[in-house]
Amino acid sequence: MRALVWDGAEARVVDRPEPAPTPEMAVVRVALAGICNTDLELVKGYMDFRGVLGHEFTGTVEDGPAEWRGRRVVGEINFACGRCRACLRGLRRHCPTRSVMGILNADGAFAERVAVPVANLHPVPGGVDDEMAVFTEPLAAAFEILEQVRIEPGIECVVLGDGKLGLLVAQVLFQAGARVLAVGKHADKLRILNARGIATATLEDWQRASADIVVEATGTAAGFSAAIAATRPRGTLVLKSTVAGAAPLNLAALVINEITVVGSRCGSFGPALRALETDSIDVRSLIAARRPLREAVDALRLAAMPGVLKVLLEP
Amino acid sequence: MRALVWDGAEARVVDRPEPAPTPEMAVVRVALAGICNTDLELVKGYMDFRGVLGHEFTGTVEDGPAEWRGRRVVGEINFACGRCRACLRGLRRHCPTRSVMGILNADGAFAERVAVPVANLHPVPGGVDDEMAVFTEPLAAAFEILEQVRIEPGIECVVLGDGKLGLLVAQVLFQAGARVLAVGKHADKLRILNARGIATATLEDWQRASADIVVEATGTAAGFSAAIAATRPRGTLVLKSTVAGAAPLNLAALVINEITVVGSRCGSFGPALRALETDSIDVRSLIAARRPLREAVDALRLAAMPGVLKVLLEP
Repeated sequence: MRALVWDGAEARVVDRPEPAPTPEMAVVRVALAGICNTDLELVKGYMDFRGVLGHEFTGTVEDGPAEWRGRRVVGEINFACGRCRACLRGLRRHCPTRSVMGILNADGAFAERVAVPVANLHPVPGGVDDEMAVFTEPLAAAFEILEQVRIEPGIECVVLGDGKLGLLVAQVLFQAGARVLAVGKHADKLRILNARGIATATLEDWQRASADIVVEATGTAAGFSAAIAATRPRGTLVLKSTVAGAAPLNLAALVINEITVVGSRCGSFGPALRALETDSIDVRSLIAARRPLREAVDALRLAAMPGVLKVLLEP
Repeated sequence: MRALVWDGAEARVVDRPEPAPTPEMAVVRVALAGICNTDLELVKGYMDFRGVLGHEFTGTVEDGPAEWRGRRVVGEINFACGRCRACLRGLRRHCPTRSVMGILNADGAFAERVAVPVANLHPVPGGVDDEMAVFTEPLAAAFEILEQVRIEPGIECVVLGDGKLGLLVAQVLFQAGARVLAVGKHADKLRILNARGIATATLEDWQRASADIVVEATGTAAGFSAAIAATRPRGTLVLKSTVAGAAPLNLAALVINEITVVGSRCGSFGPALRALETDSIDVRSLIAARRPLREAVDALRLAAMPGVLKVLLEP
C-alpha cells in the first residue's frame, strides 16, 4: 500500500506492506487524514520517530471483529497495555509502555490502511462527514482542558496562538461559558472566531490584562513567557505546545504570583464527537487544502508555511 | 538605631532613623530575626531591593494601638492596600501595589525596630518562645502548600532539597498524612527528619520513582528539571524555589505527562502558629547559630555557606 514514511532523514511516499489484523487490532481503510504540527516537529527529529506518519484520521473498518467491520470510525491514538497501574486508574493515555500512532512505535494514518486497537475505536455519528470527523483527535485535545481545569461561567480566558489548536481551544472554552479573548498574528484566521462571536486581538493591538486562565497554544518557546505575564496571580496557565529542545526561561514569576501551570495533551474522543454531531464547533473553516496521499511530501511543505491551517490527505 | 542595610553594592550595619508609628503601623522591637535564602538572593541583586533587610522576625510591640502595645508578636510580610480587586477577593498577599518587608519597598527586621501594619500582626501564643516564633514566616510558606494542593492520606510526596525550607515542607506534608521521601545532599540535615520518622535519601542513593506530588525546594534551576522527572503523569510539582535569572528548560515532559506545576510563595500565619504551639513541627533543630546584629555581615556570610541551616540575629 501507499504510505508516507519518515526514515529519520527524509519523508517519502513509498510502497509499504499492508497491516495485518489481530484479535485486538482492526485494520481501517483511511478516508481522510490531517497534518498536525506534531507531524512537522517529528520530521525535525522530535520523539526520534521512524515509520508511517499521521495520527489524525477517519476511515472504515475493513478487517477485524465482525461487529466493527464496515463501520465508519475514528481512533484514539494512545495504544495502552490496559493492565498497568496507570491504565487501571483510568489513565490509559499515560500508560508507560504505550505506543502512539504515528508518533511512538506505531505506524500512522498517512497510508491507505492503518492498524488500530479495537479498544481505541469510536463509531462516527451519521451526521458527521469525513471532513468533520478527521478533526476528532485535535478537537479532543482542545476538550482535554475541560477535563483538567474548572471553567466557571464568565471566567476570563486568553488563548495565545491562532493556529489550528488555538482556534479549536478558543471555541471550546467559549462554548463552555468562558469570556474568551483569542490573541494571534493573523487577522484572517481570527475572523473565523469573530464569526462565532468570540473576541480577538492581534498581538500588536492586545491590551494585556491579567486573565484567570491563559492557554499557551503558540507552538513556540517564547509563548510560555508571554503566557506567564498574561496570567493573574493564583491564575492558571494551560500549556498545550510541545516544543522540541530547551529554551531559557525565568520561573520566578510562577512562584511570586503562585501561578498553576497545567500541561495538557490528548483528550477523550467522546466530547469531541458530540460537539461535531451537534455542529457546535466550526472545524470546516480550518481546512486550508486537500491533497492526494501521493503528494504528501508537498502537502507537508504546504502545512509548514506560516498562516496555513489544516491540510488534509486523501489516500 | 542599628540596622543591616543593603545599598545595592554592599550590606553594612549602619545607624538608621527609628521607624515612626502611624494609625495603621505599629513599631515592633525585634527580639530575634532569621536569615532566609531570599536575603542571600537579595544581596545578589534579586528584586533590586535597597534598604533594611530581613523578613523573618519576632518581637514586642513598642508603639502603636493601645491593644497591641507590649504584646509579643510576629508579622505577615506582605503589606497590602486592602482595597483593590485582589485584596477584596482575599488575595492580600498578591495585592499588586503591595510592599514586602525587607524585599520590596519596605524596611525589614534586621534592625532594632521594624514598622509593621497592625493588620499584619499576630500574637505569639504563650508556650512559643522566641526561637520558635522566629520560624513562623518560613513555616507558613511550607503550610502554603496545603492551601494550594490537596494532600490525601498516604499520597506519595518527594521533597527535593534539604535546606531550611525543604526540612519544614517535609515535616508539614508528613504531618498532613502524606508518605514523604525527602531527598537531599547532606546526611546530617536529613537526620533531623529521620528523628521525626520521615524517610530520606541522599541524591546518590535515591531510587527515582515517579511520585504523586514533588516539591522543588532545592533553590537551584537544575532542581526544576529533576522535579519534572520525578513527578508521575498527571501528578503535581510544587515549585518553591525562586531563582534569579533564566535557565534553559525543556517543558515537553510537562505537556506529555500532563503535569501540574503549582508556584508557591508565602502562607497564612495561623496554621504555622498552631503547629508551633502544639510543637508538632521541629524548628529548633534547624538553628545553626545565633549572632548579635552588629555581626550581621559575618552572619550573612555564614548563612551562605553550604550546609548551614538557620542563622538568627539578635539586635
